[in-house]
Amino acid sequence: MGEAVDGFPVVGVVGGGQLARMMAPAAIGLGITLRVLARDARDSAALVVPGTAVGDEDDLDALRRFAAGCDVLTFDHEHVPTAHLRTLQEEGVVVRPGPDALEHAQDKVVMRRRLTDLGVPCPRWAEVSSAAELAGFGAEVGWPVVLKTPRGGYDGKGVRVVDDVADADDWLARGEPLLAEERVGFARELAVLVARSPHGQAAVWPVVETVQADGVCREVLAPAPVREDHALAAQQAALRIADGLDVTGVMAVEMFDTAAGVLVNELAMRPHNSGHWTIEGSRTSQFEQHLRAVLDLPLGDTRTTAPNVAMSNVLGGDLAQMYPGYLHCLAHDPGVRIHMYGKEVRPGRKVGHVTTLGDDAGEVRARAQHAAAFLRGDIDG
Amino acid sequence: MGEAVDGFPVVGVVGGGQLARMMAPAAIGLGITLRVLARDARDSAALVVPGTAVGDEDDLDALRRFAAGCDVLTFDHEHVPTAHLRTLQEEGVVVRPGPDALEHAQDKVVMRRRLTDLGVPCPRWAEVSSAAELAGFGAEVGWPVVLKTPRGGYDGKGVRVVDDVADADDWLARGEPLLAEERVGFARELAVLVARSPHGQAAVWPVVETVQADGVCREVLAPAPVREDHALAAQQAALRIADGLDVTGVMAVEMFDTAAGVLVNELAMRPHNSGHWTIEGSRTSQFEQHLRAVLDLPLGDTRTTAPNVAMSNVLGGDLAQMYPGYLHCLAHDPGVRIHMYGKEVRPGRKVGHVTTLGDDAGEVRARAQHAAAFLRGDIDG
Repeated sequence: MGEAVDGFPVVGVVGGGQLARMMAPAAIGLGITLRVLARDARDSAALVVPGTAVGDEDDLDALRRFAAGCDVLTFDHEHVPTAHLRTLQEEGVVVRPGPDALEHAQDKVVMRRRLTDLGVPCPRWAEVSSAAELAGFGAEVGWPVVLKTPRGGYDGKGVRVVDDVADADDWLARGEPLLAEERVGFARELAVLVARSPHGQAAVWPVVETVQADGVCREVLAPAPVREDHALAAQQAALRIADGLDVTGVMAVEMFDTAAGVLVNELAMRPHNSGHWTIEGSRTSQFEQHLRAVLDLPLGDTRTTAPNVAMSNVLGGDLAQMYPGYLHCLAHDPGVRIHMYGKEVRPGRKVGHVTTLGDDAGEVRARAQHAAAFLRGDIDG
Repeated sequence: MGEAVDGFPVVGVVGGGQLARMMAPAAIGLGITLRVLARDARDSAALVVPGTAVGDEDDLDALRRFAAGCDVLTFDHEHVPTAHLRTLQEEGVVVRPGPDALEHAQDKVVMRRRLTDLGVPCPRWAEVSSAAELAGFGAEVGWPVVLKTPRGGYDGKGVRVVDDVADADDWLARGEPLLAEERVGFARELAVLVARSPHGQAAVWPVVETVQADGVCREVLAPAPVREDHALAAQQAALRIADGLDVTGVMAVEMFDTAAGVLVNELAMRPHNSGHWTIEGSRTSQFEQHLRAVLDLPLGDTRTTAPNVAMSNVLGGDLAQMYPGYLHCLAHDPGVRIHMYGKEVRPGRKVGHVTTLGDDAGEVRARAQHAAAFLRGDIDG
């Protein structure tokens, strides 16, 4: 099962999460073969992609065996050692995005340094290794300060807001450098999704607003209700980063929309939660675009399919089973699009998302909120 | 791999062709598990659906083993013995559409009789078993006459136009009843796609024009350029048939658009080539709608996503390899949507389709024609 098709490429995805899972429909459409390297046979993508390999992305031999059957290697997440990827590249494996680009999504200090070199607007930042350095930075930009571990953070993990140096004692005691950033006042958070191919073709989607709670993305609104010059600056920043970092594939750039303009917060070098709305909301989804980009195929039309699109994440809540909720949700709103990831429900875990499209931004958002809340069990009807 | 997800249903599809294949993205989205019973591990759907079973739909034991792991049994094609399906039903298997409905898509005489009983407008027809009966029918409706084998026809096979009785000698010599139909003068061919659930909810998509060559569908244009009263009559006929035949799932009703109104030509009781445009062109694709219908979930919004949508089939032509053509097609038209089925190219074989969307019907159609012709090797650029 799952044999490759003569004349069509095989794309291998390291990681078996929902991002790899949502690449599968795009691959099925294009007739290309998708392979997945998952940590567990019950991972989200492993459930839907034939012939999924089970292995650890930290294991060079597992990566090597997996890559042997693929024309291009790409990623569901950024947690793959770049040293392994460099070795694979030397052995002739095509890795997209490459380790040099990927490093900027793995290490926030490397990212800040490079973006600053590229002239991309960022919050003021410093690498701090001691209480004295943090105190100096806080005195310069004002307290509280945002402190981040350079590596390993996601969904609010590895990030904290500290009111003074004492607040950071435990992290400083580890003796590892930290990234300190000014706490920016912003009107909203934005994300720009950009795709870039090895040939250098690039395409951006409209700028979206992301609504976060406890560091976790809850909603995405496309297009963002933002000043046109800020939207343009956001897209230009994303394109400059994609080019400057030689990104291949899809990259998400998370930003703050401030009175003075947009400032880059984070990068994700893969399809991203802020782009799930593109499955129905854009002529080309981020998942198809990612496959096209890593295969160096021409990129697709990124225009929206409706004036307003809203995406709400379905987080684990009180209900262990979400399928029974389909009866209400789909009857209540024949236009709602439900996506579930095959994941066991655990409190706060992203187990799916819903998307709605329409003319009125407020109505579209309310529909998505209702469906997501109903599925997780927050409301009765 | 491909394990079912706790609390979510398993839908089993008998047949591993492109229709089963295109149900996979819809199943992935909804988080339900799809299983396929294919004749060959290299079948179109077997390439993309984990854990595909290999077996013959004529083999009751193979069907029984397959059905044991499924909550609902449905079909990629109608060539499954209804006797087997009745046995499975008696054994507790949920079969949708059921054998009583399916029979109308298997036997054209059964279909004509039932539609006539329902008062659905059809071409004049007769069951003929002898030269005398055919001569009588020809004298009544005028020659030439359309002659069909009641069972086993598809894509123009099992259908011929005869100028006189002598023309039908070989088929009559078989001693099996044939379906004779008047040859209708029509302005265009239409198709109406309808979905119906066990609860009795039904939904139609806009009426489309189908363009055939040598009995094979080449293009589908949505919506059909047809008089509004004819479009309405076509949709009403499809809804009446779905209800009258107790259809569950998607059904395609092919029709002739004549000066006097619409006449029903054929039925297909499954997703259908005339509905491939719905993947991008409708808020709910025929594949998702079929899954929702057979699971008795509420049906989705069938509105179009653009004023005009065109679908062109990609038939096998001079090129053995179609992937290299992607470079031109996708650069030439960033909005074209390519679907390939993982099938080996053979002359005239349906190996994929392309879809385009836009404001102008003529431009949208020309774009789809260009992409399909380029992929098969008919033109150079």
